[in-house]
Amino acid sequence: MKGKLKEAVRNPTVLLDRFINCRFLTEEICTPLEVEDYVPQPIPEVSPPKWHLAHSTWFFEQFLLVPFCPSYKVYDKDFAYLFNSYYNNAGDRILRPNRGLMSRPPVSEVMAYRAYVTEAVTELLKEGTPNSQMLTIIELGINHEQQHQELLVYDIKYILGNQPTFPEYGNRFINEAENKSLDWIEIEEGVKSIGFSGEGFSYDNELGKHKVYLAPYKISNKLVTNGEFIEFIESGAYENFNLWHSDGWDFINNGAIKAPLYWHKVKDRWQIYTLGGLKDINPHLPVQHVSYYEAFAFAEWKGMRLPTEFEWETAADQFSWGQLWEWTSSAYLPYPGFQKAPGAIGEYNGKFMVNQQVLRGASVATAENHSRKTYRNFFAPPSQWIFSGIRLAQSL
Amino acid sequence: MKGKLKEAVRNPTVLLDRFINCRFLTEEICTPLEVEDYVPQPIPEVSPPKWHLAHSTWFFEQFLLVPFCPSYKVYDKDFAYLFNSYYNNAGDRILRPNRGLMSRPPVSEVMAYRAYVTEAVTELLKEGTPNSQMLTIIELGINHEQQHQELLVYDIKYILGNQPTFPEYGNRFINEAENKSLDWIEIEEGVKSIGFSGEGFSYDNELGKHKVYLAPYKISNKLVTNGEFIEFIESGAYENFNLWHSDGWDFINNGAIKAPLYWHKVKDRWQIYTLGGLKDINPHLPVQHVSYYEAFAFAEWKGMRLPTEFEWETAADQFSWGQLWEWTSSAYLPYPGFQKAPGAIGEYNGKFMVNQQVLRGASVATAENHSRKTYRNFFAPPSQWIFSGIRLAQSL
Amino acid sequence: MKGKLKEAVRNPTVLLDRFINCRFLTEEICTPLEVEDYVPQPIPEVSPPKWHLAHSTWFFEQFLLVPFCPSYKVYDKDFAYLFNSYYNNAGDRILRPNRGLMSRPPVSEVMAYRAYVTEAVTELLKEGTPNSQMLTIIELGINHEQQHQELLVYDIKYILGNQPTFPEYGNRFINEAENKSLDWIEIEEGVKSIGFSGEGFSYDNELGKHKVYLAPYKISNKLVTNGEFIEFIESGAYENFNLWHSDGWDFINNGAIKAPLYWHKVKDRWQIYTLGGLKDINPHLPVQHVSYYEAFAFAEWKGMRLPTEFEWETAADQFSWGQLWEWTSSAYLPYPGFQKAPGAIGEYNGKFMVNQQVLRGASVATAENHSRKTYRNFFAPPSQWIFSGIRLAQSL
Amino acid sequence: MKGKLKEAVRNPTVLLDRFINCRFLTEEICTPLEVEDYVPQPIPEVSPPKWHLAHSTWFFEQFLLVPFCPSYKVYDKDFAYLFNSYYNNAGDRILRPNRGLMSRPPVSEVMAYRAYVTEAVTELLKEGTPNSQMLTIIELGINHEQQHQELLVYDIKYILGNQPTFPEYGNRFINEAENKSLDWIEIEEGVKSIGFSGEGFSYDNELGKHKVYLAPYKISNKLVTNGEFIEFIESGAYENFNLWHSDGWDFINNGAIKAPLYWHKVKDRWQIYTLGGLKDINPHLPVQHVSYYEAFAFAEWKGMRLPTEFEWETAADQFSWGQLWEWTSSAYLPYPGFQKAPGAIGEYNGKFMVNQQVLRGASVATAENHSRKTYRNFFAPPSQWIFSGIRLAQSL
Repeated sequence: MKGKLKEAVRNPTVLLDRFINCRFLTEEICTPLEVEDYVPQPIPEVSPPKWHLAHSTWFFEQFLLVPFCPSYKVYDKDFAYLFNSYYNNAGDRILRPNRGLMSRPPVSEVMAYRAYVTEAVTELLKEGTPNSQMLTIIELGINHEQQHQELLVYDIKYILGNQPTFPEYGNRFINEAENKSLDWIEIEEGVKSIGFSGEGFSYDNELGKHKVYLAPYKISNKLVTNGEFIEFIESGAYENFNLWHSDGWDFINNGAIKAPLYWHKVKDRWQIYTLGGLKDINPHLPVQHVSYYEAFAFAEWKGMRLPTEFEWETAADQFSWGQLWEWTSSAYLPYPGFQKAPGAIGEYNGKFMVNQQVLRGASVATAENHSRKTYRNFFAPPSQWIFSGIRLAQSL
Repeated sequence: MKGKLKEAVRNPTVLLDRFINCRFLTEEICTPLEVEDYVPQPIPEVSPPKWHLAHSTWFFEQFLLVPFCPSYKVYDKDFAYLFNSYYNNAGDRILRPNRGLMSRPPVSEVMAYRAYVTEAVTELLKEGTPNSQMLTIIELGINHEQQHQELLVYDIKYILGNQPTFPEYGNRFINEAENKSLDWIEIEEGVKSIGFSGEGFSYDNELGKHKVYLAPYKISNKLVTNGEFIEFIESGAYENFNLWHSDGWDFINNGAIKAPLYWHKVKDRWQIYTLGGLKDINPHLPVQHVSYYEAFAFAEWKGMRLPTEFEWETAADQFSWGQLWEWTSSAYLPYPGFQKAPGAIGEYNGKFMVNQQVLRGASVATAENHSRKTYRNFFAPPSQWIFSGIRLAQSL
Repeated sequence: MKGKLKEAVRNPTVLLDRFINCRFLTEEICTPLEVEDYVPQPIPEVSPPKWHLAHSTWFFEQFLLVPFCPSYKVYDKDFAYLFNSYYNNAGDRILRPNRGLMSRPPVSEVMAYRAYVTEAVTELLKEGTPNSQMLTIIELGINHEQQHQELLVYDIKYILGNQPTFPEYGNRFINEAENKSLDWIEIEEGVKSIGFSGEGFSYDNELGKHKVYLAPYKISNKLVTNGEFIEFIESGAYENFNLWHSDGWDFINNGAIKAPLYWHKVKDRWQIYTLGGLKDINPHLPVQHVSYYEAFAFAEWKGMRLPTEFEWETAADQFSWGQLWEWTSSAYLPYPGFQKAPGAIGEYNGKFMVNQQVLRGASVATAENHSRKTYRNFFAPPSQWIFSGIRLAQSL
Repeated sequence: MKGKLKEAVRNPTVLLDRFINCRFLTEEICTPLEVEDYVPQPIPEVSPPKWHLAHSTWFFEQFLLVPFCPSYKVYDKDFAYLFNSYYNNAGDRILRPNRGLMSRPPVSEVMAYRAYVTEAVTELLKEGTPNSQMLTIIELGINHEQQHQELLVYDIKYILGNQPTFPEYGNRFINEAENKSLDWIEIEEGVKSIGFSGEGFSYDNELGKHKVYLAPYKISNKLVTNGEFIEFIESGAYENFNLWHSDGWDFINNGAIKAPLYWHKVKDRWQIYTLGGLKDINPHLPVQHVSYYEAFAFAEWKGMRLPTEFEWETAADQFSWGQLWEWTSSAYLPYPGFQKAPGAIGEYNGKFMVNQQVLRGASVATAENHSRKTYRNFFAPPSQWIFSGIRLAQSL
């Protein structure tokens, strides 16, 4: 983590406000849940809400309070084992697929743990004299928790959306139709400047402003809609191997996948599970919950392609984005000069730089102030449960 | 189900008492749980407590109230799908390994469902005129729920015993040492009478008093103890293939099994997770949580054998039993003349009569009035999470 | 192995004849094969023909020549590792599912190995002074190789029958119609004598003549035919869970099994792969290649049952048997007083006495002189590739 | 396939020579094999040699003779099913993991098939009037067969190297030490020209000369050696998760991988299986049979990195390459303007452009005239059985 944090360093009060808001918002996302909803882990990628609540708390305890606050007393020494995610440097941890078996500690105790750690960090920011390294870690911890807020929304939707009874969560995190006509933004060839530099927070994976040569291209001003995706389905695309990657073809066949996640064909009509319950499909909304394989196949079918992440970033000021993360054709690889930070913090990004695809933009579930055009999100190609969509590009 | 139910038929009041007690006891077993503990299904065999509570209720609704009480209004039509276990005749059902993903309905609603059905059956018994067939089904439903009470205890123990924090449940369902010296009961050869006949309830699998010829044998008056089992382990038995079935050898090697379930070697000392928490081993207690493979291997190591279920039943009046279900060397097969009842009730026992081993006796978790010497319990040979133990026999 | 071998002991010349014939016959079974056919192992249960040829040779080397003939020089020390099957006492061995990866040694060398060991045993029987223990092992080795002759036929059929081109092997090991009308043989209740005693060879698992009480029953004089089995299929039996064991229902559904092995529905007509190639079904032939689950379900459908192995043995003199092994309703369990021999020979039978079902009789692929009415064959319930059939029984 | 083939078009005689040589060489590679070695498929990625021989033949039949030579008579209509690899457009095919079960057709018939097709193509080139499209397909067929020649060597090595007896193949395809001191080639930043253009054959994936901006870097003049890799191992690198991708850490732990493929520690000394048999390790040879994960981890351990494929191509004229394919840090993605050809030929490359890593260079098993600096080879990150090595780079 190498974000430059000048403002924060100058002003712990601002950071405290953001910290408090962030902690509150995480809990607020969970309010519509029953206690039982906090427990299951239906697939390895989907973690129990209880786990997100505790893990984002453990991050502050493990990386801030324990190393920097000598008087801090660990809430429960077992929690490091229970709520570490993948930080091998931070000691043993429970295997990821077993998170859903941990009924203990109960939600009430996780909430007490949250309050305890929130209080300790608050006190530190109010009354302590946090040095620059500590402020940097708090900033990272807030951004880390914001990422988990978004994952919380994904995972809650998955847990509820796989109940046979399709329970409602509420009318939040819902897309809107882009009411404008399709247009193509043309970009000239040239050496472009890519990556983050300057004030404010960024992740290490987007750092290092550097040059990339781009051939001329055009990129759509709109996301692909449900209506267009229905055409794709009805053209027989899920049965036409010519449109698919070899791995994608295996993915849809092994999983018997015939549509995006949460689509249900009920009596010849498409319905979609949303956080507001099962609804008739709206053809004007952007298509959501597609894997990279489906995004790629859709572009093939259109005779177009997905943009690279560099093309996306170069054109991003010329279209609106933020309803859905947009699959790019770029594999997730390090920028020139990328170096992992030493220790556990260094495990944050670098070790995932293989077998993942970059998504750019943000979604309706992304925390405020957590998006920027240089942000590099990444997921494995089969991921459907994320808030993903499709924007097309063409070479000129 | 062909149990003769003469007393019950004569006296609905007695049956009502037993019904109310049974319903109460199921809920009472769950009182030490946190809401979160009702949800997980750590392995396919272990069902969520929530599921047991609802399934044993659904049984009365499905097989008694719906077919026999025209005015009865189903509590929630989705529940038939959610809480059917394996009754294919009773319609679609959720796949067994997915029970742990169902956070809905919440525990509170399951409890409301229980109350609703308990009330309906109570009214039927109090004010209705239940015919003999209905009384038979209530009797079966009570026995069915008693079986689930015992499974509830097994499953609660498994869920809590696999938390890294080993939480306590309470001091119930605990074994006691058999304070008597080892003795061998000798039985003479001859044609013996086996199986249930007479008044009172029995399952269909134990019906049909019939003759079995037995060669002379002797059988132990005591269960094998933890102390004896430690000797077995320390002799290197888990590394000596000569003692094991071929499938048993695969079982312990594939699962890296080195001891009964819930045994933990901490700093060279054996500890056992009990419902009262993690405890030092007591060598005088009967050994518990052994698979059939381990029971067999132990007998091999002793130069003895397990009794057949017929030997066990023939000698059962001459020793005390009831702390642990006792593995027999008998595969679970139909008695002469066994016939499945038509429809879903007929799925109760017969369809499991392959690849299962008979256990006889009862355990500290068995409901009162739910044991008799003709009772045939059965589980797959690898089952360790049940309350199982070992009694030895020898041919004469 | 506790067979009494009086005649053999008296007459090594007779044993030599049988040994030579047996060795010759194994090789003769393979003559229609291409070299390539000796190599694959399509499923773990089906071993490469090359492996059978070598393993049955290794048995004589390992258990006779090495321990008893000091001047014998092992053909190749690696072969003990390559061609041990499951005798843990005889040292390390290659894992069973990997047999099909061993292209070396080539078939020609396996044949040279066979000749070398055949020669050494021949010499021992001709010129040596084999003691009683050695003759016993030769007798066992012959019987062991005869078992592998039958498995060779099964495995060759499986390898060829799973080629997309359905190659022919030749017109051997083919069933014939039982041209007689269906009749039921009635047996009175009583204590019957079961098991082998007397002169000649037997396996340890059939030893110990002992008493079994049987209730009265009747048993069919004929095997179930293809024609009857087609009726069963056409009644919808493979879709009717009421007919199946719970495990059987999983077996046919997980494997998408809709008919016995080698049945192919081609343009609405049943064809069967036989060793003579793909043929139109003959409804008068006995049905072959059914699993235990299918045999059981067929009997359920008929409102009858399979005989126990004791019922079968008691009635066996009153019907003709030997085209197909007949599934019984008996699990494979030890007879009273059964004891494993010490060491590797003791691994022959006892360790399989769980999760297996007994078959009685013999098949067209069984070696001459290798059948008797007390013989206990056994296979796991899903086994379809064996030469199995169905005989029905009914209680009286 | 869009290679420009001007010389070939002008001169069918030259193409005939290359065709004949290519066909001969494929068979020549197999001469040291026993017939049995042609059959097994030990892991899904490793195809039976018999399959390579037939598949490379089928390619000419399917894409040249059948569509363009009306008088051509297909050798055997079943072969299209048996020997199609992954061309979904060319009809049904046998599932890849089942290739090792196909003992038929025997090797002798596959050889007859080869001769038949070789003859037909020869005649076409000698006496026919092949048009430009046909010549293009022959050119592609030769290149395709050359790729399979290399895979043949990999797969033969895998099949023989996994025999417990480590049989020898012969002294071919063996690496040599690079007898020069380590030096670093520096490349200045700038927009570089990447990709193939001009005369001669190329694959579609390398076509389209295009610009790429590169920051300054240096690249090693030598491959990493066995000696250096032993240091890496002995430093504990296989136990240090900081060096590995998250997927790489899972890969080495799930597979219990502690060294490159074919390395065996025998009595504390490293030995390596080579095509000449098991040998003591030579520390001066380039390290071979490393996965991408291991190549990456080695670079991390050195504090360096792997080159991108663009860095590699830009510097390739300044170092010698060709003993081993060199892992790059580039994911396998389409070049700007890449378009799949229509139909089955279009399946050649494009559909693999996800989850694969690019290798550059060539190996001792690469066919003559089959290498060029723009050639883009690709394999999944875990692949160890390929002839892969490591060249390091550093940013300046």
